[in-house]
Amino acid sequence: MAVRWFYLAVLALSSLGLMCILFTIYWMRYWHSGFAWDGTVLMFNCHPVLMVTGMVVLYSAASLVYRLPQSWVGPKLPWKIGHAAMHLMAFILTVLGLFAVFNFHNHSKIPHLYSLHSWLGITAVFLFACQWLLGFVVFLLPWASLQLRSLLKPFHVFFGASILSLAIASVVSGINEKLFFSLKNGTSLYSNLPSEAVFANSTGMLVVVFGLLVLYILLASSWKRPELGMQAERQALLRGGE
Amino acid sequence: MAVRWFYLAVLALSSLGLMCILFTIYWMRYWHSGFAWDGTVLMFNCHPVLMVTGMVVLYSAASLVYRLPQSWVGPKLPWKIGHAAMHLMAFILTVLGLFAVFNFHNHSKIPHLYSLHSWLGITAVFLFACQWLLGFVVFLLPWASLQLRSLLKPFHVFFGASILSLAIASVVSGINEKLFFSLKNGTSLYSNLPSEAVFANSTGMLVVVFGLLVLYILLASSWKRPELGMQAERQALLRGGE
Repeated sequence: MAVRWFYLAVLALSSLGLMCILFTIYWMRYWHSGFAWDGTVLMFNCHPVLMVTGMVVLYSAASLVYRLPQSWVGPKLPWKIGHAAMHLMAFILTVLGLFAVFNFHNHSKIPHLYSLHSWLGITAVFLFACQWLLGFVVFLLPWASLQLRSLLKPFHVFFGASILSLAIASVVSGINEKLFFSLKNGTSLYSNLPSEAVFANSTGMLVVVFGLLVLYILLASSWKRPELGMQAERQALLRGGE
Repeated sequence: MAVRWFYLAVLALSSLGLMCILFTIYWMRYWHSGFAWDGTVLMFNCHPVLMVTGMVVLYSAASLVYRLPQSWVGPKLPWKIGHAAMHLMAFILTVLGLFAVFNFHNHSKIPHLYSLHSWLGITAVFLFACQWLLGFVVFLLPWASLQLRSLLKPFHVFFGASILSLAIASVVSGINEKLFFSLKNGTSLYSNLPSEAVFANSTGMLVVVFGLLVLYILLASSWKRPELGMQAERQALLRGGE
């Protein structure tokens, strides 16, 4: 049972994550003329795609590394390096996503960081940077004591999940905000639910479902690297047994 | 340590929850002329207050009932009744909150359920109704077998946390949306960050912090009613020991 549920969840999550990215790309290409890196609104269009890809999907994949049964046996270091490297890639995409919106705002003389969406987003990015640096120093470099690591681990897990939650709250408020900006004239009012509104609302719902599944697996499932004991369950999962 | 952390968390959560409600009331009273139940925008003003009170704060309190050490000993039934009754109260406030916005929309000829905020919110309320009814039938009424209860419990916990997450995503997108509606003229543009924007953004941040702490205690903490064993920890917590 455990194995079947685990791989079903991996399949569902991968498909959902890919759909979140593809839906966001399609939204920006089909209704907002695609992408450029030139300070115009086409540069803004990179912002949602980079944020959903980096701060939600890749961040989630990096967070779930230790839930793979293959990571439960043998040395932990290669998995730690993978966890840190994937989070670093997620962070780079996130910074590029921030750069896209700041550059567009500068170009169009729009103030920065005034909406609740932006407050949530910038808090998520700031905490992400602190979390990565602290994680690197305490859990990856060799000099922190085991006591310090044990003490900080619950906080690392709590902030890891909180950053993802903030990112998801930021994504949904960002989609809502973008639709009020772009669907405010004539027949294509947001309140008339034109096709763009249905599509982008659905993208937001997908991101929320994806995030909820990731958080549940991260915090509440039994698919964790066993700290002590739990040999039987671990071996059953690795063998493919029931 | 366990006891000190637990009661510190209870104090922090109660204060935060109360602040979320009081901030929302103050926002609606000070900047939006207060409340009425007459279909006008003053009726709309009841919507955020009822939603934050019912769907976030009271819902969270009801969800955390089993984290009180007092609930870990003796018969479970009185705590189950408390859990169900508090959720019912939360649901009633939520339905009143929905009624307030639907009535205002009818009165002002505004379409219902078009924004991502409303999609998230109505999904949360629908799942809340299903969750309460299923919980009542399976966990409170006496005829469900222990096997069925054990089978459904992880889903009950997952949907419980998911409904709260949806509610919080809905609250933050709702605050963002309301500020774009109300701060769009002259000097009080949202992008100029007038005092209302700072205050309401801060309210949204508070709701998110409150929600994250509740979800962490619900899903990841060790303050759970022990299913089997864990006598020593439970007794230490009840005695007030280390």
